[in-house]
Amino acid sequence: MNNVYPLVSLQKFTKEVFNRMGCPRDQAELATEVLLSADLRGIDSHGIARLSGYLRLWEAKRINANPNIKIIHETPSTAVIDGDGGLGLVIAPKAMEVAIAKAKNVGTGWVAVKNSNHFGIAGFHAMKALQHDMIGMAMTNASPLVAPTFSVERLLGTNPIAVAIPAGKQPPFVADFATTTAANGKLEILQRKNMDAPLGWIQKKDGTPSTNAHELKDGGALIPLGSDREHGSHKGYCLGSWVDIFSAVLSGANYGPWVPPFVSFLAPPADPVGDGIGHFFGALRVDAFRPAEDFKAHMDNWITRFRSAKTIDGEERVLIPGDPEREMNEERLKSGIPVNEKVVEDLTALAAKYGLSF
Amino acid sequence: MNNVYPLVSLQKFTKEVFNRMGCPRDQAELATEVLLSADLRGIDSHGIARLSGYLRLWEAKRINANPNIKIIHETPSTAVIDGDGGLGLVIAPKAMEVAIAKAKNVGTGWVAVKNSNHFGIAGFHAMKALQHDMIGMAMTNASPLVAPTFSVERLLGTNPIAVAIPAGKQPPFVADFATTTAANGKLEILQRKNMDAPLGWIQKKDGTPSTNAHELKDGGALIPLGSDREHGSHKGYCLGSWVDIFSAVLSGANYGPWVPPFVSFLAPPADPVGDGIGHFFGALRVDAFRPAEDFKAHMDNWITRFRSAKTIDGEERVLIPGDPEREMNEERLKSGIPVNEKVVEDLTALAAKYGLSF
Repeated sequence: MNNVYPLVSLQKFTKEVFNRMGCPRDQAELATEVLLSADLRGIDSHGIARLSGYLRLWEAKRINANPNIKIIHETPSTAVIDGDGGLGLVIAPKAMEVAIAKAKNVGTGWVAVKNSNHFGIAGFHAMKALQHDMIGMAMTNASPLVAPTFSVERLLGTNPIAVAIPAGKQPPFVADFATTTAANGKLEILQRKNMDAPLGWIQKKDGTPSTNAHELKDGGALIPLGSDREHGSHKGYCLGSWVDIFSAVLSGANYGPWVPPFVSFLAPPADPVGDGIGHFFGALRVDAFRPAEDFKAHMDNWITRFRSAKTIDGEERVLIPGDPEREMNEERLKSGIPVNEKVVEDLTALAAKYGLSF
Repeated sequence: MNNVYPLVSLQKFTKEVFNRMGCPRDQAELATEVLLSADLRGIDSHGIARLSGYLRLWEAKRINANPNIKIIHETPSTAVIDGDGGLGLVIAPKAMEVAIAKAKNVGTGWVAVKNSNHFGIAGFHAMKALQHDMIGMAMTNASPLVAPTFSVERLLGTNPIAVAIPAGKQPPFVADFATTTAANGKLEILQRKNMDAPLGWIQKKDGTPSTNAHELKDGGALIPLGSDREHGSHKGYCLGSWVDIFSAVLSGANYGPWVPPFVSFLAPPADPVGDGIGHFFGALRVDAFRPAEDFKAHMDNWITRFRSAKTIDGEERVLIPGDPEREMNEERLKSGIPVNEKVVEDLTALAAKYGLSF
């Protein structure tokens, strides 16, 4: 059974938790907005379900609630930001602001971030560019759960990429996806329901295919987008690697197997190669390429043509990236946000511990 | 039976063909270098096998052998180039030069190209950044052979992405891949051998799965990376769309189903939405983020760690993107380039027609 909450209740509670951690008021508000954008858009694994995770990392002194976020290197079109161990939910919007400011000046802006933490959904950050008639990009590395093609070792995170592209009369194009066959959140849903996973999502610790959604607990791994070599898993491996290198080797964060885990009960690697986890952001002014009105008119044409494509029998429509999340967002603003029962229990316990009410 | 030719023989012949088309001498030389880099790297579908295709497009007056390639819009970090209907093989290196020059000035450079044609392998262009201690990116759209998830219509090309990242003592990281489950070149190999394709590569004209490598002739389509919805084909669709929009909607080229075909026997769409096909290039100075020596030392560590990963039983090693192509390049420089018999016939006929000798 899911319990449905209006957005404002979840906002109020989330803000209280971040305040309780010692976040400055404006940062608590920002972190709340970023976190709950996941619940609104239907990416439940990345929203309030993670709130207690952030809190436990803070309890373990692995999150700095009042970070000194600063630019440590820059050129006219680039910057590197040191997040000072803060919440990725707060560092990422700051980094995206810097990317947007640079794009205003020189056409594009590119910001690599180190010493950060989980930043919520990549799509939220990429979409910040849209209101400026810019294309936004956001990516992040994450703790190693994914085995490169032919490897039994987990060396990459699910390393998502988001690209948000403005249109005119049409809603924007917003792609936001893990570079694995299936995001970890999808697996968590199957775990809760005690269901099997399709072949091609996960492998056993010896690298053979598995359908056991709990396989990662036994040393198994998620598989890069493509499922196997014959179906292009080496391409998913390329994508995940690219995200890892842009997010962490460019910035000075931990990469590959050295990325610290999000869960507080697992210790970070004893031999870090950088600081915290890394992100990478981009903003491209569309009028740095052609007049914004022309660009947006052609995006409308692109979107309209693809959306009206003839479908396979039994399929209702061809989707434009961002369609399902936008529709979910509208729906949940109206009808409220369903929260999984286990998450409710978790938040209720958290509330009790800190004298809050959920 | 394949015939094996030393690189110099293929160079000499290819240059003669481009000269014959009326390319200025330096452009004929450049086009030859770009085209044959595909054969050297083992991407046979994109090399000399396409030479007669370029010639036939030129005969059909769809390639301008002496183009006036010019920047039509720019900011400090961006440019749009009009390729004047020239060979992509010549336009793309010029665009990459512009991206690199901009990166020297402001940290990164991003160039969208319209009014171009097939540009050879994306990896060649991305790799041009490496000698400048820059990361290179290259992507292009292509004629529509790919059906978005749930669509029976072919709306996207195989739209490849290349990312080349410099290292220190290790060879560079070079990813270069079509955003489909399998590149069209892979399908062409099966067609020549009259072999079936694995499920997940192609669909019939009604959208049902197919193993017939000739399915595209009957209205079938290639499938985006992921193979089906359950295994993430919507992510491959996102990737291919992103390449299409960056390459063509930003530049003013044709996009989606309007991209003109490479083969001269198919007419371009009667209602173009832009000029020619489009490309997109990027160059990022690594020292716009952190000192180049630090970056390269960490890339060496990244590469070494991934290459030494424990493998699945029966697999020899975990590859770093670019490994197989680099090894093939070394091998073929030594032992020569095998050319498929049908391609030899094709080139021999071409030579006879133009009074050249192959």
